[in-house]
Amino acid sequence: MNDQRICAVINIGILATPKGLKAKAGTQQGEILSLKNAYLLIEDGFIKELGTGTPDLTGIKADQILDAGGRLVTPGLVDAHTHLVFGGWRAHELQQKLAGVPYLDILAAGGGILNTVGQTRKATENELFNKAAKALDGMIALGTTTVEAKSGYGLDLENELKQLRVAKQLDERHLVDVVSTLMVAHAVPSEYKHNRNAFLDLILNTIIPAVAQENLAAFCDVFCETGVFDVAESKAILLCAQAHGMRSKIHADEIDAIGGSELAGELKAISAEHLIALQDSGIASLKTGGTIACLLPATSFYLGKPYARAQNLIAAGVPVAIASDFNPGSCPSYSLQFCMNLAAYNYRMSSEQVLTSVTLNAAAAIDKAKIIGSLEAGKLADLVIWDAETLDFLFYRFGSNLVKSVVKRGILV
Amino acid sequence: MNDQRICAVINIGILATPKGLKAKAGTQQGEILSLKNAYLLIEDGFIKELGTGTPDLTGIKADQILDAGGRLVTPGLVDAHTHLVFGGWRAHELQQKLAGVPYLDILAAGGGILNTVGQTRKATENELFNKAAKALDGMIALGTTTVEAKSGYGLDLENELKQLRVAKQLDERHLVDVVSTLMVAHAVPSEYKHNRNAFLDLILNTIIPAVAQENLAAFCDVFCETGVFDVAESKAILLCAQAHGMRSKIHADEIDAIGGSELAGELKAISAEHLIALQDSGIASLKTGGTIACLLPATSFYLGKPYARAQNLIAAGVPVAIASDFNPGSCPSYSLQFCMNLAAYNYRMSSEQVLTSVTLNAAAAIDKAKIIGSLEAGKLADLVIWDAETLDFLFYRFGSNLVKSVVKRGILV
Repeated sequence: MNDQRICAVINIGILATPKGLKAKAGTQQGEILSLKNAYLLIEDGFIKELGTGTPDLTGIKADQILDAGGRLVTPGLVDAHTHLVFGGWRAHELQQKLAGVPYLDILAAGGGILNTVGQTRKATENELFNKAAKALDGMIALGTTTVEAKSGYGLDLENELKQLRVAKQLDERHLVDVVSTLMVAHAVPSEYKHNRNAFLDLILNTIIPAVAQENLAAFCDVFCETGVFDVAESKAILLCAQAHGMRSKIHADEIDAIGGSELAGELKAISAEHLIALQDSGIASLKTGGTIACLLPATSFYLGKPYARAQNLIAAGVPVAIASDFNPGSCPSYSLQFCMNLAAYNYRMSSEQVLTSVTLNAAAAIDKAKIIGSLEAGKLADLVIWDAETLDFLFYRFGSNLVKSVVKRGILV
Repeated sequence: MNDQRICAVINIGILATPKGLKAKAGTQQGEILSLKNAYLLIEDGFIKELGTGTPDLTGIKADQILDAGGRLVTPGLVDAHTHLVFGGWRAHELQQKLAGVPYLDILAAGGGILNTVGQTRKATENELFNKAAKALDGMIALGTTTVEAKSGYGLDLENELKQLRVAKQLDERHLVDVVSTLMVAHAVPSEYKHNRNAFLDLILNTIIPAVAQENLAAFCDVFCETGVFDVAESKAILLCAQAHGMRSKIHADEIDAIGGSELAGELKAISAEHLIALQDSGIASLKTGGTIACLLPATSFYLGKPYARAQNLIAAGVPVAIASDFNPGSCPSYSLQFCMNLAAYNYRMSSEQVLTSVTLNAAAAIDKAKIIGSLEAGKLADLVIWDAETLDFLFYRFGSNLVKSVVKRGILV
């Protein structure tokens, strides 16, 4: 990174950005502003002006001008769902998975999420920071400029705080912005296997208050799923977190539709995640609650699972965001570009719908739509110059990184 | 590219390479030599020695030594099936495809392959060279060091020769090695729509002899498919090309099993391509003919088609190669890394099987197994240093380019 500060981007072939700007919640899919032969002026890291033709460059030095060479420019991509901070990897489990070993058998042998919890607990803050910073380097090289990061591999006070403190440091020290979510209700740790009420008590009475006191998380997420946390438990945790100032997110209907998306609407959750097994009642509830559906197509791809009902959600007027779900177990990829390909091919979303899903709607899913997610005056100068002439090209030329350059807060990465 | 000449690669964490070295035909899947703490000595672009521990570096200058830093090293990837040289792209057709417009309707409106034929005919040799060279740059950055390139977007004497001459120039001038295949029997061009016998006559009596005379192609390939070329036509073309010194390849059973793979075995074709609709009789024929099955998983992915029967082929003892099928219509990706992921997840092949498929078996599918496709003394020093510690990691961390460095003919790319 040369950290060059950019004040003008000129010679943009097509500038494509979601409309419905400054939206607080997600917008409907596909309302795109497309400017040909455009430019963009930046001041102190914020967008000052955009327009077509040749801008007035008076007072701007040559090395502050970035020539897009007729290429496509979009907002920086926003990854609204990751498990960014974790110890180790689980590459060795892939062959077990492909050989058909059931996940519960892997878990019983100390693998699966318990493996990652063990490695995360063992790791120092510094080790976790360096590993996650390397992932952020990879993500920004792929066009991602803002990332949500969930805890949930600590599963005790000390280690949940450790994960969230690392995420906070990453936000402060890495060019990519990081937004944190407490997700201690990710699994029941081994030591509470026979005493889950004590774990719930720990979450409600110790961990949530401690996280709130250090102001370490904007959101609280719960894995509401058969065998993990049921609807009543999820509700209790999310209401407690709301009382401590954390807005709700829910891992809902990933495997079974046990009521997670219905709960999301009831609690006016900002987003509901996965939604592979989503029922019509869940769609209706998300719509009523103003909840954004955060879909994770790369997880379906990696696990060989069905793809979520994106078209039904869009038809019902539920805003759809698309995120990577980057984590060492069910989605070891952080490429939002690849998620965009999957959304086009498998959700059958148009290019415009997908662009909205990984920019403005993703920003809304982490309550940042006022400052990122679209290109307009007053928002952060987070943008990608693509090695592409049209928006469609991004969805067509899969398998390669099509990023030409990334500008984050006005800085050329 | 700095074109630095490497004479030693040291500190290799794991050196993984297919065994069955110097195989003329493909080998069975999965016989992998795996050396820990290994090194590799290179002389004049060829592998001189490999072993474990610390090599004797006497006489080797510091800038000729490449430290792999404990990483995984494999042979360079071999892409045994591409349509590398073409004019234009067809990104605009993606939305038509996703909206369900039938391919034949696109074709009838002058789109589909006819669009690419038109753009390829219009392009100069120089334009085609620059476009394909850029693709080769992208491919080698993803770990591909040798590429097969088919003609078949000219469909007349002048333009087939033009495509093949460009491929020959690429082989001579680009670091990636390019092996050429005549595939004039790719489609019947518009001008022969009502007179296909005249097109066959042109192929047999003019184009094949002219390509042979200029020594422009090692192989001849035919699209043996319903509505394209039937078995009798395919046989006549391939026998004619054999008489002119070109070994046979066949696009067989991609959509319908009309006898293409049976013909492949009968003609002892070096490879049969696609094989999505392959029947048991086809498997038996490939086995008898010593034909390599060249599978193209990214095409299944992009078109939403079924995946070929890799496990049945392997069980029957047919060597499997995996290639990209890079082309502007049915597979706009040239990432063999992504094909490797797809092979693991969808063909359910082991890491060792997939590695063999994109190295030694792919080399055998283009008759180059004597000099590339595995790491052993006497073969070209074509290798990849991966940002991975184990072979499994390549199949696990999908969505990012895991190449750390590529060495091609002893030169650090």
